[in-house]
Amino acid sequence: MTKQHINIGLFGFGNVGRGLYELLKRVPEANAEIVEVCVRNLEKHSKEAGDLKFTDNATEVLDNPDVNLIVELIDDADAAYEIVTAALRRRLPVVTGNKKMLARHLPELIKLQKEMDTALLYDASACGSIPVIRNLEEYYDNDLQISVKGILNGSSNFILSKIFNDGMEHEDALLLARELGFLESDPTLDLDGWDSLFKLVILTLHAFGVYVEPERIFTYGITHMTDADIRFAREKERRFKLIGHAEKTPDGRLILAVMPQLISRNKFIYSCEDEFNGVVIKGLFYGKQFLVGRGAGGHPTSSAVLSDISAIRYDYFYRYKRMHSADLPHFSNDIFFRVYVRYNDESDLDLLRFDEIYERYVSSDTKYVVGRVNLARLHDIREQLAERKIFIAAYPND
Amino acid sequence: MTKQHINIGLFGFGNVGRGLYELLKRVPEANAEIVEVCVRNLEKHSKEAGDLKFTDNATEVLDNPDVNLIVELIDDADAAYEIVTAALRRRLPVVTGNKKMLARHLPELIKLQKEMDTALLYDASACGSIPVIRNLEEYYDNDLQISVKGILNGSSNFILSKIFNDGMEHEDALLLARELGFLESDPTLDLDGWDSLFKLVILTLHAFGVYVEPERIFTYGITHMTDADIRFAREKERRFKLIGHAEKTPDGRLILAVMPQLISRNKFIYSCEDEFNGVVIKGLFYGKQFLVGRGAGGHPTSSAVLSDISAIRYDYFYRYKRMHSADLPHFSNDIFFRVYVRYNDESDLDLLRFDEIYERYVSSDTKYVVGRVNLARLHDIREQLAERKIFIAAYPND
Repeated sequence: MTKQHINIGLFGFGNVGRGLYELLKRVPEANAEIVEVCVRNLEKHSKEAGDLKFTDNATEVLDNPDVNLIVELIDDADAAYEIVTAALRRRLPVVTGNKKMLARHLPELIKLQKEMDTALLYDASACGSIPVIRNLEEYYDNDLQISVKGILNGSSNFILSKIFNDGMEHEDALLLARELGFLESDPTLDLDGWDSLFKLVILTLHAFGVYVEPERIFTYGITHMTDADIRFAREKERRFKLIGHAEKTPDGRLILAVMPQLISRNKFIYSCEDEFNGVVIKGLFYGKQFLVGRGAGGHPTSSAVLSDISAIRYDYFYRYKRMHSADLPHFSNDIFFRVYVRYNDESDLDLLRFDEIYERYVSSDTKYVVGRVNLARLHDIREQLAERKIFIAAYPND
Repeated sequence: MTKQHINIGLFGFGNVGRGLYELLKRVPEANAEIVEVCVRNLEKHSKEAGDLKFTDNATEVLDNPDVNLIVELIDDADAAYEIVTAALRRRLPVVTGNKKMLARHLPELIKLQKEMDTALLYDASACGSIPVIRNLEEYYDNDLQISVKGILNGSSNFILSKIFNDGMEHEDALLLARELGFLESDPTLDLDGWDSLFKLVILTLHAFGVYVEPERIFTYGITHMTDADIRFAREKERRFKLIGHAEKTPDGRLILAVMPQLISRNKFIYSCEDEFNGVVIKGLFYGKQFLVGRGAGGHPTSSAVLSDISAIRYDYFYRYKRMHSADLPHFSNDIFFRVYVRYNDESDLDLLRFDEIYERYVSSDTKYVVGRVNLARLHDIREQLAERKIFIAAYPND
């Protein structure tokens, strides 16, 4: 069903939707146009782009006989799920960027795609403009995958960059990020790692063929990072980066986590700055690959959306080949690893149940430990760590 | 013609061919096996891999009825051309890594593919394991392409890294690269930029839809770099990198060059070290993308070859969409730009015909100029620059 012309039914007209509208005007070769746009606030949008037809009736767009592809770019994950499934059931191919919805519903969406023989593409959902899903699907899928990790959230990376590069105070960096519109209305999505978590769930499925519910993955952000932590990183000539991490162990287990990490200067990710995302993909034969690009923003993300639209024109669909692999790795949190923990009260240390302690520092204004903990334990006590404002970061020995 | 099983007729059994053989053993899911191998020295190879069938008769492999795909991995560009065209004429799809052959013959090979309706894939030919051609074809092809540039040769980058990172002497770095097998038997291919040139020609076709004969592109390497040049770069807190550069100007011209460049610390490419390749791709909407990976070596390159083999299994072929664009850019060398030139004799300066000179330094042991020259002039006097052992590097004002 190679389509000569793509007629888009668009849901949402925020930064990315508007970016797509502008991009399509610049690229007539794409042979795609927006036929109808569904928005919540009809009043607000209908004045903006005069040549577009707006509605607030989702069914009207889904049932529009001129529409042959749905692009879903709204914030609300539940509403997005309704739209995407309704479209697929009508055998309308869908392009979406909704990572939260995907991370929650991927298994059923994969099933529905297959049942309806209709494509759902979502490269814009993970790392904005970086074609990471497409490459995991199409290029790295024949090698023995070892790990996928990286900076999956642009806002928190922007803040960390301002602190470590420009010597900005933590509070000021946060304010600047807010001013520039880099933070979500609910900033905990970015700063506590939830946004990175959703992307990690999606990437893990494509890299290792395994779906893991977001709730099972230890996720901890940079909200409780203080100046003492920043000083520690500087002394060690490292930088904190918020890292999503998926790795297959030699004994066939799949370890997943989202948390800050002390990155040394010789790592690719050390130099991935500002609002950029950076992903390091490792395979047995191809070795190490590093992909960097803008992880957010209307224009970069709309370019990724258009790449997916164009792929659908050529009948492209994800094959999820890894899911059919003979020996899928098994998700596990049972691994010990080296961490830096800045704590406030001695009872915090009991909570963490260190396997070993390598380094310990106590002064009147700061206390920290470098030691070995179990990831499963961290997952169990996540809430308490946050309540006690403990800061924790992976601190690999390299 | 989605193939259930790929039966490979392999030409060449060097590092990459052997890497492919090992990789296929590890990945049964690839559903591919090597049926017959054509080598020059039958004696040498037949003992190495006991389960493989070797021959020195090319026609035998091409006419083997069990073979349904040809993988061409030999050094000799002329012989490779014969094999690739003979295979395509037999409607046998081909995977090749021969950049020199491709850079010379791409237009006719594109025509032949179309005539025979048979795929020719070659992602391994440019930047080893980095999927740069595939991404230019499939992902970045809907945006307005601005530039593609980067480190396209691993050996010269290894040498420059040893000098700038490890403080190694130029001569020692060269010796180490030779010891580790990073230099071609003819090292001028790497050091004088010819290898980068061939890759640039291939990438340019996929990024901008324009084929430019290698001879028309100014190409200058690092052979004449001296300690004085290295000192200059260090003083300016920059590093020399050998860069292949393709850029579309706002007035629709296509500027191409391969030459050293003084890279400042804030650039992605500054941190691309050792034998890694790194490519920066810029588009109007997606912004800046940076892809890094091993640019050479049997294993990384064989992984790229297997990705192409697998793509052929799914009927993938390059569409060369950019070539059908309405306004193709026109190749031009007529551009002025800022360079650093270390010279030996005052007459060298007349040769270069500087438009402007910004900086000039003369001492008993070194002489250099920072000024503005025309790329077309450099192209005209390339031979003389080399004869006079002049070192020249782009020196952007950033």
